Amino acid sequence: MFSFRNDYNVLCHENIIKALINANGKQLDCYGLDEYSKEASERIKDIFDCKNSEVHFLCGGTQTNMVMISYMLRDYEAVLACSSGHINIHETGSVEGSGHKIYTCKGRDGKVTPQDIRDALIVNCNEHTVKIKMVYISNSTEIGTIYSYQELKELSEECKKNNLYLFIDGARLGAALTSKYNDVKREDIAKIADAFYIGGTKNGLMIGEALVIVNKELHGFFRHEMKNKGAMIAKGYLLGIEFNEIFKDDLYFKLASHTNEMAYYLKDELRKINIDVNDSPTNQLFAFFERKKALDLIDKFGLELWTDLDDKIEVRFVTSFKTEKEDVDVLINYLKNY
Amino acid sequence: MFSFRNDYNVLCHENIIKALINANGKQLDCYGLDEYSKEASERIKDIFDCKNSEVHFLCGGTQTNMVMISYMLRDYEAVLACSSGHINIHETGSVEGSGHKIYTCKGRDGKVTPQDIRDALIVNCNEHTVKIKMVYISNSTEIGTIYSYQELKELSEECKKNNLYLFIDGARLGAALTSKYNDVKREDIAKIADAFYIGGTKNGLMIGEALVIVNKELHGFFRHEMKNKGAMIAKGYLLGIEFNEIFKDDLYFKLASHTNEMAYYLKDELRKINIDVNDSPTNQLFAFFERKKALDLIDKFGLELWTDLDDKIEVRFVTSFKTEKEDVDVLINYLKNY
Amino acid sequence: MFSFRNDYNVLCHENIIKALINANGKQLDCYGLDEYSKEASERIKDIFDCKNSEVHFLCGGTQTNMVMISYMLRDYEAVLACSSGHINIHETGSVEGSGHKIYTCKGRDGKVTPQDIRDALIVNCNEHTVKIKMVYISNSTEIGTIYSYQELKELSEECKKNNLYLFIDGARLGAALTSKYNDVKREDIAKIADAFYIGGTKNGLMIGEALVIVNKELHGFFRHEMKNKGAMIAKGYLLGIEFNEIFKDDLYFKLASHTNEMAYYLKDELRKINIDVNDSPTNQLFAFFERKKALDLIDKFGLELWTDLDDKIEVRFVTSFKTEKEDVDVLINYLKNY
Amino acid sequence: MFSFRNDYNVLCHENIIKALINANGKQLDCYGLDEYSKEASERIKDIFDCKNSEVHFLCGGTQTNMVMISYMLRDYEAVLACSSGHINIHETGSVEGSGHKIYTCKGRDGKVTPQDIRDALIVNCNEHTVKIKMVYISNSTEIGTIYSYQELKELSEECKKNNLYLFIDGARLGAALTSKYNDVKREDIAKIADAFYIGGTKNGLMIGEALVIVNKELHGFFRHEMKNKGAMIAKGYLLGIEFNEIFKDDLYFKLASHTNEMAYYLKDELRKINIDVNDSPTNQLFAFFERKKALDLIDKFGLELWTDLDDKIEVRFVTSFKTEKEDVDVLINYLKNY
Repeated sequence: MFSFRNDYNVLCHENIIKALINANGKQLDCYGLDEYSKEASERIKDIFDCKNSEVHFLCGGTQTNMVMISYMLRDYEAVLACSSGHINIHETGSVEGSGHKIYTCKGRDGKVTPQDIRDALIVNCNEHTVKIKMVYISNSTEIGTIYSYQELKELSEECKKNNLYLFIDGARLGAALTSKYNDVKREDIAKIADAFYIGGTKNGLMIGEALVIVNKELHGFFRHEMKNKGAMIAKGYLLGIEFNEIFKDDLYFKLASHTNEMAYYLKDELRKINIDVNDSPTNQLFAFFERKKALDLIDKFGLELWTDLDDKIEVRFVTSFKTEKEDVDVLINYLKNY
Repeated sequence: MFSFRNDYNVLCHENIIKALINANGKQLDCYGLDEYSKEASERIKDIFDCKNSEVHFLCGGTQTNMVMISYMLRDYEAVLACSSGHINIHETGSVEGSGHKIYTCKGRDGKVTPQDIRDALIVNCNEHTVKIKMVYISNSTEIGTIYSYQELKELSEECKKNNLYLFIDGARLGAALTSKYNDVKREDIAKIADAFYIGGTKNGLMIGEALVIVNKELHGFFRHEMKNKGAMIAKGYLLGIEFNEIFKDDLYFKLASHTNEMAYYLKDELRKINIDVNDSPTNQLFAFFERKKALDLIDKFGLELWTDLDDKIEVRFVTSFKTEKEDVDVLINYLKNY
Repeated sequence: MFSFRNDYNVLCHENIIKALINANGKQLDCYGLDEYSKEASERIKDIFDCKNSEVHFLCGGTQTNMVMISYMLRDYEAVLACSSGHINIHETGSVEGSGHKIYTCKGRDGKVTPQDIRDALIVNCNEHTVKIKMVYISNSTEIGTIYSYQELKELSEECKKNNLYLFIDGARLGAALTSKYNDVKREDIAKIADAFYIGGTKNGLMIGEALVIVNKELHGFFRHEMKNKGAMIAKGYLLGIEFNEIFKDDLYFKLASHTNEMAYYLKDELRKINIDVNDSPTNQLFAFFERKKALDLIDKFGLELWTDLDDKIEVRFVTSFKTEKEDVDVLINYLKNY
Repeated sequence: MFSFRNDYNVLCHENIIKALINANGKQLDCYGLDEYSKEASERIKDIFDCKNSEVHFLCGGTQTNMVMISYMLRDYEAVLACSSGHINIHETGSVEGSGHKIYTCKGRDGKVTPQDIRDALIVNCNEHTVKIKMVYISNSTEIGTIYSYQELKELSEECKKNNLYLFIDGARLGAALTSKYNDVKREDIAKIADAFYIGGTKNGLMIGEALVIVNKELHGFFRHEMKNKGAMIAKGYLLGIEFNEIFKDDLYFKLASHTNEMAYYLKDELRKINIDVNDSPTNQLFAFFERKKALDLIDKFGLELWTDLDDKIEVRFVTSFKTEKEDVDVLINYLKNY
């Protein structure tokens, strides 16, 4: 049975394998200094309109978050994030492990607001508190929501006003930018954020995330930081080959768009059979079912249990680049006949 | 021109790609909990005769060293290593970044001796010094030498006597174990070390190192440590697929053996033309050339400059799973005609 | 004008100075290995009925919390604390700086409950979350409340059941134990907590906190940890002399008791003039005043502004070992004539 | 018997106690923001001719070194120090505990040379090595030697040329500056170093070191760093009172000068009885004795065993502000009659 558990349970898009085959056998420069990595960087800088940025390739999202946040902060500085932020709840204290507090705010719909920033700065105002120096947001968020252009612009302005860095965790940036509800352009991102990463793992790559460092203050030593945190691989060209491929012919965005389309289709079909699913703009859907039904669904379709209220359970449905209408139909049929 | 710079400048052995193709499309459990990873673990535990060990797959050598060393140590504990140890000189302070001192000894031929341990313990004996709690060795070492069984046994006994963990960095464990000068059996390793890792990156894999935790005191929470250090990837099955493949039909050792054979051939050919190369048991060779010749060689064959004594320069030749006799012959001809 | 800002703005009780004078001139063993420190340790172990504990003297509360918490935890482990906990809000990310997440709960009246522990363990249950390994509580709490014996006992049982350490920040342990609302005996503490510290700074000492490590699992290497964190002073006997003195003739508890008495007197007097002060069991009182009056009070009596609601402001009154009835009367008269 | 073990085994100079008595009873601002601390800072800035510096007071040498070094460095940056440097051998990995490598050089007579710096920068030159960002020296050094003005000037120039910070551990700065062999003026220090600390513990204070941050790049957030590392005490005025007193009427330098005079007297007397003591410019003397005699001396006079060569042992004699000629005479008589 097709699993709707997450968007990273299939190795990769076939083009990625082809690109690896084409590159195999060649002797390449190591540690990310090869031609593929350079070409991939250029593609990314073109697409996101940020010619003067640095691009680095890392192996995973938790790693990218931790290494970049630690790179940005001094010992006594902290990052502001939503309490639902990935760094706060699903990274085993990785940011704290690197020595930095995550100061959390409630946020709204999984998103940090300018008011959250102002509130955090009022509380953290002297040497007995951390110094908030950066804001971490995810787009799309951990609950599938996305930021509007206006929201990002206001956050960015609030950050600049307070001399804070703005960092975007783009594990699912593709899903955000290709959402039909989205009004943020690709070329807006680098104007808004000091740094952001473009998720590969959750959008058809075998491994890898591309970190874009826009702010020049932060240029120059990220490779040292990567190595210091065990995040620089000898065969860095593996990541270069992959990202070079996925940014050819808009493949990255095509996959993300397909992923979203499958989510919308699933949402529509669920609603047709009167299941009260949330109005997600991206590829994560949430719905409550009575206990037994939820557990059966989890068992059959590998869903993630999201909230357990005893009598009813909220489950998460995730679509991916591999999801097809037929897979959705099987799920819907199962529900119809339950 | 074929480069003798290192053993990781070619993506991977073709079987690895084939294995990826075979696995692609399937929905797999994530974070290293998939069937491939389990099968690979079993193969490794069989080959190294350590049924009760834990096996974990990580993305690189620096990462594996840092995460495992930090996992083994309390805040005030330190690791003893040769001053030439990889963790001491080529990992950008990664171990210290995780909070631990590397206490260095001179060693002999790149190897730690029982006397080094005893000396370190005499000096580090109270609360004003670190507490030495583990010994880090590499086999083969950073200069291509290998430990004899007797040397390893004595080290292990000295460690046990002093309640120290012994950890083997096996970035080039394949080269060590397949060396014609080697007398250590595969099944000896887990009897000698509390933990060791089997390098994939330098022996034909695309990415990945396999860490084996033998000592049961250290079982149970390494996955937490991995995640905490950003070392757990979502698509952990990528590493499982690779290691499962490379340990089929002894491929891992065949590649390492071929690598060594090419080094011996190169050594013989260099000696035939009166070049004074060291008597390396594995795939790293070192030789001095007068300055201009050395720089020309570095330029043509991508060698690494090892020592610069102004008038003469020591260069390093490294063979790999991709090196063929013809590649060596080209180098030798170049030298003959220089 | 006498300041009610805090309980540490006067150097020390006169007996402390006398003890320093008596000890001055003698050559003493350093780093806390002197006779005074030993004698002080014995007094503490007698008073708190914990013969087999280790006692260590440190220089401040933040330091004691950070060093002990870091000592207790592995890289991936975290401490559970109230969101109002001192370590969470007023220590500049010190615990996180040592590499550990503070997982916060709401608590009730500044106190952690067994339910908070159970809830935290449900959420933090696998390798993608931290492993909760200890519970941090303060007694008296940051808002002046105290734990009942029953509350402590239940917390302790919940901790033991889940293999968690229980650590008590006793910056104001004297105030807690001498409160007229208190039912916890001195000899209960070491039966309940795995470790606790007895605050000197906030109860008449010049400098110093006494850490008691009850749980034998945690014995043996705390001196290494202290030195590693810069918390071991050469003239450790300074702290030994002080603690030896303050635990003579029950002075420690007499001072704490006096501090509480002054708070009760202040509370009564405030209520007589119809000021709605909280019913604090210890030496921290909180009351709201309309804005201008609050600011005037802050200015005259050095109070700490606690909460600013624009129209009204909550201020904190703290009494100390130096507070006398006359000081309270001046404040009350000021308020009467305002 | 008077112990020559170290220069911190007596509580403090009597003036310090008097100053504490005078200040006791007053309500003071906390956390180092009091009038005494300000006055002490001004005295220090006057004496060392560094009006625009920041002065901070901390509790110990290891703490001051660790907090300042960590404050100066980013994650991937390291400090260069002599292998005999206090931070490298007697601080339980404190600097590494804060996440930074100590890159060691051999030095000459316990002193770092410009050539050491150049050598370190050649080796540490890319992202696979740490980035050397500061140089740590001690004056006087761990073996009692001192830097000449010319040596300091050249070090400072080499640092500036390479954009490195120069930090002086002045645990025994008094002894260095009052040595009869010294040609460094008080007002030279702040022109040479980016930061330095003035040791109190080893020169008559009860507790405390005064850190002077000269370089403006490093101003502004050291108080955050102190708190983050548990190094800010609530009753900061304790340190202010002490330093304010010791810098009155040149007391600090008088004590250091006396200490040196006693060392010279001891050196002369030892030589008169044909004991081959080193020609130390400050208050640490070293001499070899045959084994039994050395052990007897250690036993009687509390000396520190420095080097054990089996047949003979090197011991250390340290004089302090409390040493008197009579104390030396007793030792000499003992030796004469041995």
